[in-house]
Amino acid sequence: MVVILKKDPNEKQLENLKNWLRSLGLELHISDGANQTVLGLVGDTSVVDIDLIKALDIVEDVKRIQEPFKNANRKFHPQDTVIEVGGARLGGGNFQFIAGPCSVETEEQICYVAQAVKEGGAGILRGGAFKPRTSPYSFQGLGAEGIRLLLEAKRETGLPIITEIMDLHQLEYFDEVDIIQVGARNMQNFELLKELGHLRKPVLIKRGMSATLQELLMSAEYVMAGGNEQVILCERGIRTFETATRNTLDLSAVPVLKTLSHLPVVIDPSHATGKASLVRPMALAAAAAGADGLMIEVHNDPQHAWCDGPQSITPEAFAALARDVRGILPFCQYSYES
Amino acid sequence: MVVILKKDPNEKQLENLKNWLRSLGLELHISDGANQTVLGLVGDTSVVDIDLIKALDIVEDVKRIQEPFKNANRKFHPQDTVIEVGGARLGGGNFQFIAGPCSVETEEQICYVAQAVKEGGAGILRGGAFKPRTSPYSFQGLGAEGIRLLLEAKRETGLPIITEIMDLHQLEYFDEVDIIQVGARNMQNFELLKELGHLRKPVLIKRGMSATLQELLMSAEYVMAGGNEQVILCERGIRTFETATRNTLDLSAVPVLKTLSHLPVVIDPSHATGKASLVRPMALAAAAAGADGLMIEVHNDPQHAWCDGPQSITPEAFAALARDVRGILPFCQYSYES
Amino acid sequence: MVVILKKDPNEKQLENLKNWLRSLGLELHISDGANQTVLGLVGDTSVVDIDLIKALDIVEDVKRIQEPFKNANRKFHPQDTVIEVGGARLGGGNFQFIAGPCSVETEEQICYVAQAVKEGGAGILRGGAFKPRTSPYSFQGLGAEGIRLLLEAKRETGLPIITEIMDLHQLEYFDEVDIIQVGARNMQNFELLKELGHLRKPVLIKRGMSATLQELLMSAEYVMAGGNEQVILCERGIRTFETATRNTLDLSAVPVLKTLSHLPVVIDPSHATGKASLVRPMALAAAAAGADGLMIEVHNDPQHAWCDGPQSITPEAFAALARDVRGILPFCQYSYES
Amino acid sequence: MVVILKKDPNEKQLENLKNWLRSLGLELHISDGANQTVLGLVGDTSVVDIDLIKALDIVEDVKRIQEPFKNANRKFHPQDTVIEVGGARLGGGNFQFIAGPCSVETEEQICYVAQAVKEGGAGILRGGAFKPRTSPYSFQGLGAEGIRLLLEAKRETGLPIITEIMDLHQLEYFDEVDIIQVGARNMQNFELLKELGHLRKPVLIKRGMSATLQELLMSAEYVMAGGNEQVILCERGIRTFETATRNTLDLSAVPVLKTLSHLPVVIDPSHATGKASLVRPMALAAAAAGADGLMIEVHNDPQHAWCDGPQSITPEAFAALARDVRGILPFCQYSYES
Repeated sequence: MVVILKKDPNEKQLENLKNWLRSLGLELHISDGANQTVLGLVGDTSVVDIDLIKALDIVEDVKRIQEPFKNANRKFHPQDTVIEVGGARLGGGNFQFIAGPCSVETEEQICYVAQAVKEGGAGILRGGAFKPRTSPYSFQGLGAEGIRLLLEAKRETGLPIITEIMDLHQLEYFDEVDIIQVGARNMQNFELLKELGHLRKPVLIKRGMSATLQELLMSAEYVMAGGNEQVILCERGIRTFETATRNTLDLSAVPVLKTLSHLPVVIDPSHATGKASLVRPMALAAAAAGADGLMIEVHNDPQHAWCDGPQSITPEAFAALARDVRGILPFCQYSYES
Repeated sequence: MVVILKKDPNEKQLENLKNWLRSLGLELHISDGANQTVLGLVGDTSVVDIDLIKALDIVEDVKRIQEPFKNANRKFHPQDTVIEVGGARLGGGNFQFIAGPCSVETEEQICYVAQAVKEGGAGILRGGAFKPRTSPYSFQGLGAEGIRLLLEAKRETGLPIITEIMDLHQLEYFDEVDIIQVGARNMQNFELLKELGHLRKPVLIKRGMSATLQELLMSAEYVMAGGNEQVILCERGIRTFETATRNTLDLSAVPVLKTLSHLPVVIDPSHATGKASLVRPMALAAAAAGADGLMIEVHNDPQHAWCDGPQSITPEAFAALARDVRGILPFCQYSYES
Repeated sequence: MVVILKKDPNEKQLENLKNWLRSLGLELHISDGANQTVLGLVGDTSVVDIDLIKALDIVEDVKRIQEPFKNANRKFHPQDTVIEVGGARLGGGNFQFIAGPCSVETEEQICYVAQAVKEGGAGILRGGAFKPRTSPYSFQGLGAEGIRLLLEAKRETGLPIITEIMDLHQLEYFDEVDIIQVGARNMQNFELLKELGHLRKPVLIKRGMSATLQELLMSAEYVMAGGNEQVILCERGIRTFETATRNTLDLSAVPVLKTLSHLPVVIDPSHATGKASLVRPMALAAAAAGADGLMIEVHNDPQHAWCDGPQSITPEAFAALARDVRGILPFCQYSYES
Repeated sequence: MVVILKKDPNEKQLENLKNWLRSLGLELHISDGANQTVLGLVGDTSVVDIDLIKALDIVEDVKRIQEPFKNANRKFHPQDTVIEVGGARLGGGNFQFIAGPCSVETEEQICYVAQAVKEGGAGILRGGAFKPRTSPYSFQGLGAEGIRLLLEAKRETGLPIITEIMDLHQLEYFDEVDIIQVGARNMQNFELLKELGHLRKPVLIKRGMSATLQELLMSAEYVMAGGNEQVILCERGIRTFETATRNTLDLSAVPVLKTLSHLPVVIDPSHATGKASLVRPMALAAAAAGADGLMIEVHNDPQHAWCDGPQSITPEAFAALARDVRGILPFCQYSYES
């Protein structure tokens, strides 16, 4: 961390600042120029509240040099984290497909799709039970009953399941859920993240629509700071000025996140684009960029899905896609452990 | 709502669609062109799930013409909503100042600042008890104890108070809080919004960092659909590419929201800009644009605030600002009730 | 195009509007609702100035249904455009590599790099002569001399060349240049685009940092309206709130553009990301998404490039990348001609 | 400028770097930590090409501390720049109105509007002759004939005029134009900026739709580096995700620019919002925020303007607006000269 002082700082205030920083266990390096004095802070600067220093009269600016996250940081944990649930592995060279319908609708539907995506190559079943909808007048999901149906499909197919939690009150229904998903709108629901940190169960965190990659890693840090180290990061599109797609899928997030962190990175091309015809190209692109997995909406009858139908693909399209992804993986190998 | 059909739609599917739309109580107007057929839907289209129609094979696109919100819509409630709490009025021509520290720190601090902002012209006291912080390692607020101190300041000064809720579990501490604030990161925490809809107490909703104005109104609609009509909208800056300010304060939100809705609109120039020196110009600009009120961070000692100090102004600066805002209001009158 | 009228429009004004629209050769379909009248316009609506209609007293809103571009529109030209220069083909199933240094520095440098990228698999040589730089104090390129050196490299290797034009005055130096590049900052330099429309030489247009895909296609339309049909579209990253990469590479642009238009689409992962380590993953992702080609910065000595060194890769890295791209192409086939 | 080195940098490379930096006239301050070495550079760092240093093997990151602009920098020119044209003053406490139609249409129209805005309080006449239009099929302005008509209106009313240049070839028509406008799409047309730097005539530069404030100042620097110090900065809205307004007017640009630079700052609320009903609130807000002037579209008959009619206001609305702006100015005083 570098603290840039204003010209001719008050001597006593400067002395106070230096003493306080040293009391935090930091080493100080002072560079005195004709126009400018700069303090270099060496040590664990994640304990420093950057805003506190910026507020001081004698300080012009403060710049971080080290990342403010520790548990999620690859520098301190060079080896890839591997997530294991019900026989499925994700991360550390294990590419994984998470597939299923946007919303759980009926037992027939979820069991049919579960079986179909399993045959198509998926190792984990997804399905929405509690649904975040912009309008209070839209279908809000089957709720607890939706989770019951997902567990039914899990029993039938053996696939571990992932589904979204929207509020701490719903936690009681997630006992048998294998991976808990935190949606983009809840990425900075810090109370929820803290509570999930006390579980010992994988948590997939979707990047908020306007969250930086560093903020996504800080949300992972919230969960990990509680002791739960099984976190999966998911890019699902950010909000930009472009309206041709629902969101703009930021695939450079893959190499950037994997360089900064040891956590697995999954891409959701269905929500990002909002269009079935864009799922295949973006899924192949995600795999080519080095993602650890894909989260894809598959519906037996996309024309009549209860919500988000336009972005769902058929089981046949999914199977073809999974096959082609497997085809390109050998050409798209990366190494981030240094 | 206008449904644009693909060329040569399947006759039977088209018939099904028409019947379904009519069964929703909508009137249909069909415009048959050489290249294109367009269905105009007339009636209460807020009941139509737009994604369901878009998903149909025969449909090329669907465009909304009416707004999807009802309770918050000025078309159906032309008169300005006025919020009244503990003698303070906000909206409908009543300009109001909400002021106080970012975080409640001690009893002395909050009581001192409360008295000072009251003298400076504020009618409502703000102060953070539960604090959303990007990093799990930053100060998270005094929590329930912070609310206790706010109530102490309310008792001493008579000012009604507003403070932020971060999770439903905290609701038990808000009994005597006059206005409940929903922060930008929780603007689409739909479970929270639904629950607040069952209260009979004003709710101030901050616009999410990447939320459109329509989405903000839909979040207000969540609260109002539950029967709670006392909603205040707050613009606090959106996320853009510009880094000179923490966020970009979107002041055109004021006339746009007030045209679309009867709800009062408040501006928070402190969080938007993140810099004390920008609070005064942006506060005056907000008042000039027609805002119903301002939410301003004031601290007795901004240099030593526990968080967000850089954006707090002194009680003296606040008083001067409030005086100048009162000075410009007579020149900045608008009429939206038509 | 759909024109939504205000409630109870003035009869005479409405009659005038209808007559004027009919005089433009458009067919009108009127849908009269209790609350709303909608005019559906059928015919060549690209001749209608949408702002003119929006300005009318009796009009509430106007919505386009058809795209405002014609020459670039796949609907009217289903077959992929193929660009041919000096033996190199681009588009219509011909994947092409455009490679070379950010800036032309010396004859030795450009000839060395040209030979190296040719061996690595490139079919077209790129190199900057006129350089757009944010600061007037930065190196501005070798100018006309840079083009002379590029032509020298072309003579030695047989590779056709592409380089950027910044102003019409420079056109005299582009006689022997095979493809003229219009940079992101000039995407809406309409005078330049019009002039390039009179040439019979391929023009590559880079998407502006905040240009929508439709605006990019409208810029292509400017060139094509002049009679020059050899246009290449290039995505090079858009500006968003994310700062981890220089820009955000929008790879969904590939399938979106190729669906809307018959023009070839090329991706520039070097400028988009600004980091050499991100070039390989983003280049592979671009190919997987269906791009027709890649534009990649290659430098013999990236450590000592005169500008933009951090995003250049070595000839060896380029050759490895090109090999892997060729490996994945068979798995990533798309068909847009319908 | 601070250069952060990688761990254990190569000794010889480090020595080379130090020598090179010293040869640029910079003083070096080295701060050696256990994990990190940081070089502080003191002196005129605007001569340093930041990308060159970032490219070095031994460097992890480089952070600027000083602004890269000099001529436009308030630190070196504390006093406000005042622009004087034909009796009108702008900046340094002189608030100015620039008003007129989007496009010059006929002599009657421009002379009528000129007289009307003069009576309403405008000191400078605006009017578009060369018009940048997204579509090649839209009206492109009257061109040179438009400038002739503007000069006619200048003769009749005595108002100095401002109009936009789109290409260097048009410069010959600008001899008698008082202020040359560079549009948002040309803000980084560096060849144009360089040439305008050789004139001795005020240049108004509009901020690009996705340009940072620093980039706007760098474009001013291009003009000023050529010796032309009469530059006016104009904010006209930036591109964001919000679609309720055409662009998002960034009014915090006013205090930010005026703190960083001595150049006058003008706001264009007409183009920013694209809606006549938003012009008044945003104009008042701009004045309240400390702008030096307003640029407003006024049309005698906004319903029938040839382009951009929806955002034009009538002469009567302009006069009322100007009167109210004059009313609030005394309450909105700022001091940036320190």
